[in-house]
Amino acid sequence: MTEQEPSLLDRLGIDIGYKTTHTKSIAEADIVKFAEVSGDYNPVHLDEEFARKTLFGGRIAHGVIAISLISAAVAKFPGLVILVSHSSRFLRPVKIGDTITATAEVTDTRKDKGIVRLKTTCANQDGKRVVEGETEVRIYAAPD
Amino acid sequence: MTEQEPSLLDRLGIDIGYKTTHTKSIAEADIVKFAEVSGDYNPVHLDEEFARKTLFGGRIAHGVIAISLISAAVAKFPGLVILVSHSSRFLRPVKIGDTITATAEVTDTRKDKGIVRLKTTCANQDGKRVVEGETEVRIYAAPD
Repeated sequence: MTEQEPSLLDRLGIDIGYKTTHTKSIAEADIVKFAEVSGDYNPVHLDEEFARKTLFGGRIAHGVIAISLISAAVAKFPGLVILVSHSSRFLRPVKIGDTITATAEVTDTRKDKGIVRLKTTCANQDGKRVVEGETEVRIYAAPD
Repeated sequence: MTEQEPSLLDRLGIDIGYKTTHTKSIAEADIVKFAEVSGDYNPVHLDEEFARKTLFGGRIAHGVIAISLISAAVAKFPGLVILVSHSSRFLRPVKIGDTITATAEVTDTRKDKGIVRLKTTCANQDGKRVVEGETEVRIYAAPD
């Protein structure tokens, strides 16, 4: 009888229920930087006078900023973490000054492939969920 | 007989096949700014020495930067455009210096709700698809 070698996920301690978080307060400067990187200058994010007249009553953060916080939570997994797929539903707006916590929790694994399925959510400082969805990552051994 | 009022989407000229694009060359500075906004300091994006030893052979852009270019393409739709949901599959890495074109094309509409479903993709300078997925937006009348 040969003993089976533990998988990379086993060696890294990644299994169902494993969880990381990333918390950040959203400043106006983040919205401006994100607009510069993306080229997304939607006035609801950048023009206070415009945004005040919308249903939001003021500027809101780009929805993809919340996704970027999920990416930061996922990056805290051990090993070399690469995104395979991502989906999000945007439930509530994120406003300037909101403190957002992104959480990535393992719901399923394919240990032979190093594939990990995560429930990925963002909540604001009031505990209200602003984004919910799923992310699939592939985890490789980090180089020495 | 009363004539039916045209919907907002009709007034804005948004129907199946309507399409916007956004093109950007990805500079090292974009990756650094994105890391600052997101807090995602995965070394495969930021540490050339680390990244050279991975399967990618060098630094790659954060996957969510490609999603942000989709957000910029979607922001070019007329009216006040708000993300409802988004999904992407990451097919190929984006490297520093790559020129990425994000395309958002209407595949379905719910005119009574102002809901628009889009096929959203990113391709590189060689025409190879790096990201593909779907985005759902809700379009409101822009304030005067």
